[in-house]
Amino acid sequence: MITENQYFDGNVKSLGYETAEGKSTVGVINPGEYEFGTANKEIMHVVEGELIALLPNQTEWKSFKSGTSFEVEANSSFKVRAEVQTAYLCQYR
Amino acid sequence: MITENQYFDGNVKSLGYETAEGKSTVGVINPGEYEFGTANKEIMHVVEGELIALLPNQTEWKSFKSGTSFEVEANSSFKVRAEVQTAYLCQYR
Repeated sequence: MITENQYFDGNVKSLGYETAEGKSTVGVINPGEYEFGTANKEIMHVVEGELIALLPNQTEWKSFKSGTSFEVEANSSFKVRAEVQTAYLCQYR
Repeated sequence: MITENQYFDGNVKSLGYETAEGKSTVGVINPGEYEFGTANKEIMHVVEGELIALLPNQTEWKSFKSGTSFEVEANSSFKVRAEVQTAYLCQYR
């Protein structure tokens, strides 16, 4: 099954699926700033575009361009900002 | 706007968006075999999983694992086969 998710009034949409290593989603983020909470550890890969992220316990925003990734621990929250529509892969591992 | 698309009874779903270089979609393909037609040139990147593709004018299926890509000319058709749920980025360029 491919699940359909949307957040922030449809400004973030994703499609969920399963892999042998755990759940994943691919999604698109509209320009804007968003705060996400994590229930599990997440590995976020920027597939196209750019995410500027404020990671837990950090004070500086950091840019992640396509081909790069960052990790967020379980039970935390992080902010991302996009200036263009940006595609991502999120692996819950 | 993030557009939602589905094909083959929901066995292929994608999210469409715009980049400065042209339209893109990220999507998920369920296990199975599918034939796609192209109106424009497409660059298909395997984001997670594996696609086995029969490209135009080819007689042999070829495996594309995550991190690899293939191109398909406009106005042609190609087949893909997935053995596991597979995420892709398609760039229309």
